[in-house]
Amino acid sequence: MNDFELFIKEYFSHFKASRIKEAMYYSLAAGGKRFRPSLIFAVLEGFKIDPKKGYHAALALEMVHTYSLIHDDLPAMDDDDYRRGKLSCHKAFDEATAILAGDGLLSAAFKVICDDKELNNDTKVALISDLSELCGANGMIYGQCLDLEAEASQSNDIADLYEIDDYKTGCLFKCAMLMGMRIAKDEANYDFYDTFAHKLGRIFQMQDDLFDIIKTSEEMGKPSQSDLKNAKLTALNYFDKDKLIALLNTEFAELHTLLDKQNFNTEYLKRLVDKIKER
Amino acid sequence: MNDFELFIKEYFSHFKASRIKEAMYYSLAAGGKRFRPSLIFAVLEGFKIDPKKGYHAALALEMVHTYSLIHDDLPAMDDDDYRRGKLSCHKAFDEATAILAGDGLLSAAFKVICDDKELNNDTKVALISDLSELCGANGMIYGQCLDLEAEASQSNDIADLYEIDDYKTGCLFKCAMLMGMRIAKDEANYDFYDTFAHKLGRIFQMQDDLFDIIKTSEEMGKPSQSDLKNAKLTALNYFDKDKLIALLNTEFAELHTLLDKQNFNTEYLKRLVDKIKER
Repeated sequence: MNDFELFIKEYFSHFKASRIKEAMYYSLAAGGKRFRPSLIFAVLEGFKIDPKKGYHAALALEMVHTYSLIHDDLPAMDDDDYRRGKLSCHKAFDEATAILAGDGLLSAAFKVICDDKELNNDTKVALISDLSELCGANGMIYGQCLDLEAEASQSNDIADLYEIDDYKTGCLFKCAMLMGMRIAKDEANYDFYDTFAHKLGRIFQMQDDLFDIIKTSEEMGKPSQSDLKNAKLTALNYFDKDKLIALLNTEFAELHTLLDKQNFNTEYLKRLVDKIKER
Repeated sequence: MNDFELFIKEYFSHFKASRIKEAMYYSLAAGGKRFRPSLIFAVLEGFKIDPKKGYHAALALEMVHTYSLIHDDLPAMDDDDYRRGKLSCHKAFDEATAILAGDGLLSAAFKVICDDKELNNDTKVALISDLSELCGANGMIYGQCLDLEAEASQSNDIADLYEIDDYKTGCLFKCAMLMGMRIAKDEANYDFYDTFAHKLGRIFQMQDDLFDIIKTSEEMGKPSQSDLKNAKLTALNYFDKDKLIALLNTEFAELHTLLDKQNFNTEYLKRLVDKIKER
């Protein structure tokens, strides 16, 4: 278990013993790749700041990401029984517990930021303001709403897809980048963090769309072809497989070009981009 | 529409148009009595502070309260089709929308506090820390977890009931009182706010238990006798109706005695206690 995973485990001693606590930790520790926390750490390392200074923010963000997956998997939503190769929360526990565990993680995220002993209150309020806005009804939840409405739609306009991707996936990437930016006090370069997150969010979601048709359920840790089953609007509605792979390669190269133009050490971010490319 | 309701309506212009926004506002504006906001305002008025200074905190708290009702009413939880005389959120919209609307309200609560232009960042962090802790897996959600576990239990120990009431209902009352305390900068009297909220939470929940058997569905705005249907652990497992009414009268009198001992103007709180007694 690496330092960040240990930090998560230790933070959980803060919670009273309950079935909800178990369900929260079950889903949080279920083998996610921590890409969003890694974005924060990669920004901080680029400024020679100890990644530990981002642990509270990163845990908050990962709690929000995990809650969104728990609620997404519910029968009334995407109805997925597996996630990351394990039973989804409502299958490992039950629906009521999964709803409350998601609520518990979302509530806890803001406490985790308040509990940070390294950051001052101005930075905490900035982090909380970004997180609550980007995960809420103007951010990620807006994207989930568009996603539900787009099911079985016959949109021919790729702007519709990009809008869903930007909100549903891009908003939490943006939050990660802004968290790194604020802890590193690099707000002057806001446009870079925003643009990078925006591009990465689209690429990441289009990769997911591709994986849904080319990977096996075993490789995915959840049933493949579920987008097809749920009649989701995905990149495959606009591009065939080969065209999508070519587009992704171009987009990943553009991320490197963008990183080359920055005046801080972006080697850590580049490595992370490559890791996401090869996932 | 009074000033606070107008404030809520205006705050909603902050959200992008979506079905989720509609569902959030539908439930928030569905005729709740605003007891938790009123507690904040009553504390502030006792210090001659304009209640408007508590509007952001009060909206945040009411958003959290409303989200908890939306999720509580879901089929996987209490499965209630009516709330405050109107269709519950998942009936007026659908289950997926209700889950996301609850998530959207919980997320927004923390942004509302950040958006407050009157309070400084130290106060905002204190408010957010209290709210996230008291509504989460160590607070209200812990109470909901105990409540689920207690269904059909044969507990003879009234401490079990009080523990559920303290968390499920008392925590948000405590949050209201602490919000008033922090905005009024009366932290030195923490014990009073804590004790008052604790007592009020128990009384309020025991009143609800009583109403479930003595009020009609029409008076309640939701089906009566639902606790019986759901085999909930309530005060009626320990007291008969007349004993419970007598106990509540004693407890309400004790709240007045407690308020008499404070060295700020508690007339506003006393009036609110009386309003709750007569609800």
